[in-house]
Amino acid sequence: MASIGFIGLGNMGLPMALNLLKAGHGVKAFDVNSAALEALAQAGGTPANSATLAAEDTEVVITMLPNGSIVESVYLGEGGLASRATPGRLFIDSSTIDPATTQKVAAALETVGAGFLDAPVSGGIMGAKAGTLCFMVGGPAGVLAKARPVFDCMGKKIIHTGAYGSGQLAKICNNLMAGILMAGTAEALALGAKNGLSPKVLSEVMIGSSGGNFMVEKWNPWPNLMPGVPASNHYNGGFHVKLMVKDLGLAMDCAQQANAAVPLGAVARNLFTLHGSLAEENNVLDMSSIQKLYFADIDNYNEV
Amino acid sequence: MASIGFIGLGNMGLPMALNLLKAGHGVKAFDVNSAALEALAQAGGTPANSATLAAEDTEVVITMLPNGSIVESVYLGEGGLASRATPGRLFIDSSTIDPATTQKVAAALETVGAGFLDAPVSGGIMGAKAGTLCFMVGGPAGVLAKARPVFDCMGKKIIHTGAYGSGQLAKICNNLMAGILMAGTAEALALGAKNGLSPKVLSEVMIGSSGGNFMVEKWNPWPNLMPGVPASNHYNGGFHVKLMVKDLGLAMDCAQQANAAVPLGAVARNLFTLHGSLAEENNVLDMSSIQKLYFADIDNYNEV
Amino acid sequence: MASIGFIGLGNMGLPMALNLLKAGHGVKAFDVNSAALEALAQAGGTPANSATLAAEDTEVVITMLPNGSIVESVYLGEGGLASRATPGRLFIDSSTIDPATTQKVAAALETVGAGFLDAPVSGGIMGAKAGTLCFMVGGPAGVLAKARPVFDCMGKKIIHTGAYGSGQLAKICNNLMAGILMAGTAEALALGAKNGLSPKVLSEVMIGSSGGNFMVEKWNPWPNLMPGVPASNHYNGGFHVKLMVKDLGLAMDCAQQANAAVPLGAVARNLFTLHGSLAEENNVLDMSSIQKLYFADIDNYNEV
Amino acid sequence: MASIGFIGLGNMGLPMALNLLKAGHGVKAFDVNSAALEALAQAGGTPANSATLAAEDTEVVITMLPNGSIVESVYLGEGGLASRATPGRLFIDSSTIDPATTQKVAAALETVGAGFLDAPVSGGIMGAKAGTLCFMVGGPAGVLAKARPVFDCMGKKIIHTGAYGSGQLAKICNNLMAGILMAGTAEALALGAKNGLSPKVLSEVMIGSSGGNFMVEKWNPWPNLMPGVPASNHYNGGFHVKLMVKDLGLAMDCAQQANAAVPLGAVARNLFTLHGSLAEENNVLDMSSIQKLYFADIDNYNEV
Repeated sequence: MASIGFIGLGNMGLPMALNLLKAGHGVKAFDVNSAALEALAQAGGTPANSATLAAEDTEVVITMLPNGSIVESVYLGEGGLASRATPGRLFIDSSTIDPATTQKVAAALETVGAGFLDAPVSGGIMGAKAGTLCFMVGGPAGVLAKARPVFDCMGKKIIHTGAYGSGQLAKICNNLMAGILMAGTAEALALGAKNGLSPKVLSEVMIGSSGGNFMVEKWNPWPNLMPGVPASNHYNGGFHVKLMVKDLGLAMDCAQQANAAVPLGAVARNLFTLHGSLAEENNVLDMSSIQKLYFADIDNYNEV
Repeated sequence: MASIGFIGLGNMGLPMALNLLKAGHGVKAFDVNSAALEALAQAGGTPANSATLAAEDTEVVITMLPNGSIVESVYLGEGGLASRATPGRLFIDSSTIDPATTQKVAAALETVGAGFLDAPVSGGIMGAKAGTLCFMVGGPAGVLAKARPVFDCMGKKIIHTGAYGSGQLAKICNNLMAGILMAGTAEALALGAKNGLSPKVLSEVMIGSSGGNFMVEKWNPWPNLMPGVPASNHYNGGFHVKLMVKDLGLAMDCAQQANAAVPLGAVARNLFTLHGSLAEENNVLDMSSIQKLYFADIDNYNEV
Repeated sequence: MASIGFIGLGNMGLPMALNLLKAGHGVKAFDVNSAALEALAQAGGTPANSATLAAEDTEVVITMLPNGSIVESVYLGEGGLASRATPGRLFIDSSTIDPATTQKVAAALETVGAGFLDAPVSGGIMGAKAGTLCFMVGGPAGVLAKARPVFDCMGKKIIHTGAYGSGQLAKICNNLMAGILMAGTAEALALGAKNGLSPKVLSEVMIGSSGGNFMVEKWNPWPNLMPGVPASNHYNGGFHVKLMVKDLGLAMDCAQQANAAVPLGAVARNLFTLHGSLAEENNVLDMSSIQKLYFADIDNYNEV
Repeated sequence: MASIGFIGLGNMGLPMALNLLKAGHGVKAFDVNSAALEALAQAGGTPANSATLAAEDTEVVITMLPNGSIVESVYLGEGGLASRATPGRLFIDSSTIDPATTQKVAAALETVGAGFLDAPVSGGIMGAKAGTLCFMVGGPAGVLAKARPVFDCMGKKIIHTGAYGSGQLAKICNNLMAGILMAGTAEALALGAKNGLSPKVLSEVMIGSSGGNFMVEKWNPWPNLMPGVPASNHYNGGFHVKLMVKDLGLAMDCAQQANAAVPLGAVARNLFTLHGSLAEENNVLDMSSIQKLYFADIDNYNEV
């Protein structure tokens, strides 16, 4: 069993750390939120007063942070993780950030002989709790081989995506697609409904047909067509609109850097941005609430 | 066994008619293409010299035609099917056309007491040959019940979508989604590739994740990632770009009529239109060739 | 002086007819709105009880109607204008409709030897009242030469655009551009304002620079930057959102028929459609109210 | 007369520096291109071997550089301009870059008591040569007052846009609009042409009407409609596609930072990106060459 430093106990990070504890690893952790630290302590983990202290004397350090500039400061800031890294230690960043920052962090750690992997996840809070996340891992295959037992405690699918930053890219490209799928599904359902076609029937048609996709099958944005999804709970929970805007923004940045055209993703980003800007509270609804942008009076919709 | 008149023996119509013959129905058919008529005759069917003659003295008439104005002229033109329809006979239009024309045809047939269903299909040429099409059927449930044995010879999934025209709407909304899925998948793969991420790896990531969709799973647009798809055969075969442009155009028309916003579908339509207009021959490639619009030099791409 | 039949006395048609009277022409007119007929009578015109009666025994007939299907029925319906047209008479349609309908009407009138011109206008209600409209005229140059004195009573700029339907096309293409200009100007002003740049300063920068356009110069969408425009009157008056949606829809139809890509126009159409669908009352605001879609809380904006 | 250090003698910078010399200022300058330095010397200027040396002992320093990271390194890098700035000296950055970098540079110079202005320009190479540029100037009004005589030698319109960075924002928002205008104008002309309407006639219709804009009036993208523009010279010269992609990219970045929706600008950026990616040489054509994306076979177009 390894000694693990865990930095960032948010909605995703906390259940991931708890799964490491459950598997028998020692976990020292830091977060700015004391309630999260307390929850970790109750499960047998050790709270630390800073990122630096959480990482001290551990074999593996996992970071799960909100954005690239925080990751940069935690690793590369004065007294940051990179300044105390030593040969042979392993650092894993599971945050979703821009590949350029990832590559700067990787370079700094390589310089001192420490291992690094970028390993963003998909699968959401449910997957984090159940230990069924998918990890997209960028970095040397040898480093991944060493880290695999740790990943296995938190996820069920570990995909090696290539060099440093490729994990981030894979996550970003997947989420670009996810944003297009969600807005597209909402668009198709609204087009049908405004022409008198039942969203329930259309969903049945699309599933298994050429319109089939993750959203219509697992995350249907029309209210009350599917139990347990945010759309059946007033769009609460799930993956917030502002997070989708953030991820689509990362995709736009990658597109600019590589001179790639992303017309559908660009329109999707703007639709989610419009949705969030029309009412501030929309930003903390699930992304499937984009359905309301397409069908404003959805609360009064009655199947014909 | 029924006597069936079949009008329109194209890429889809001919295998559908052959499946009806195979099931033991009598089939009299018309098409402007004499080779298709001959193929039908060889399988035991009866060629007719006009749509009117094909329909004469049959219990069921099936039409499978290229567009709404042809459907309108075959049914509602002088001496057309509607003028000779009699009470109790059953007409099925499996063409993909605008719901407004469907509703005009339905009204004309209802007036004389004949039955009508709009029943466009999905599943492609493969599904037509294998008898595994999906029929989206609009019209009275009672009429569908009567027609079901005929559908069962040609398809494996028969979905009642609602009133007259709803079959067309379901098809159109599904294909709107399909167009968004294909362009979106090509967009995500190109974004990854231009940033150094392998399209093969990204496809694996998306399948089963929140970016999962019919195209990445069954119709991957990147060359040689998947056996048997058009992308692995220089984009030959499949569903032509010009047909996708046509179907997305029908979706745009329905959007205008119902005052619905379809921003992603509109951009998708324009991308396929651009693709077709940049080189005339693109129009008769499979729609997955949109990948070339996103990644012009795809023939020289080498996995890093 | 000519005897003129005028059909359609709406916001545009009535002031146009009044200008014809003022110039000394005899005007017989029909509209479904009796108040408009009365206004015409008070100015010396002759109300008629139907389109047919208004046209009877006149040398020139002008139609100014809301859409293509009404134009089609007035000209080509049973007992319509075409059925009573005689050689040498002149028909002018100033409605904004699809070129295909225009061409059907033109063909019917040519058959009987009557003259026809499609002559949609720009310049708005102000231009109609002032007699300063711009006419975009499709049809034979010889027919236009004959009609010119009539146009001169209502407009100040008469452009011969080409064959039948080209007047409609010119109007439609111009309004496609206008829709893009309005949404684009609102987009640029909102982007600046959200980043702290004054919309007033940005407007000054754009005027006369490479961002200069009709909207920022004559129809500024930001409230209270320009006197007399709808944006300075709570977006009342002007050119209604629903009319912009209609005209952009005609452009989409023309794009489909000619297989042309119109990605910016398509997005503009969808933005105006979204705007109108988010609150029913938006549809009867001036199109410059699209500014509110881009900057929701514009009523509380304070220049920094 | 002032002593001026000028850093960056590109297509824009060199003629600007020459105008300063012509007005009697002393100009010391640096560029990596020795031919430009020689041209400056021939006009009476003093070449320097580095940016630092060009700035040494001058009252005013003007920078005209290709992008934000170069500006950052020239001002804020080791031994950069900021490290040698002294109270009372004046720095003017006329590069087009992101406002965030501008604000970092401004803060560094303010700290040492030096003056700073961001002053990007519009007007192109022609305007730079003629001394008729428009300067959009961000920074304190007092600093601008002091700098005005210098600006007056290079431009004819000096607009104070607000605080540090607002000059950049104004430029970026204006160029967002310019990109939309160019693509929109090309779109409208192609829509007309594909439907049989003459681009020449349509241009005449739009000018002075609600579709009027800088591009149709001064930079018409259709070949040979207007003398002297790039479209009449095989799209050579002018403002390169890759520069438009860069400026639209800056607009996208500003949109992300302020959570603003820019759907039309996003589509425009993607159209120019597609255009440049379809053939590498397109990137160094004038932006009006986007017309070829809309009308592929433009070289064979014949007015009907």
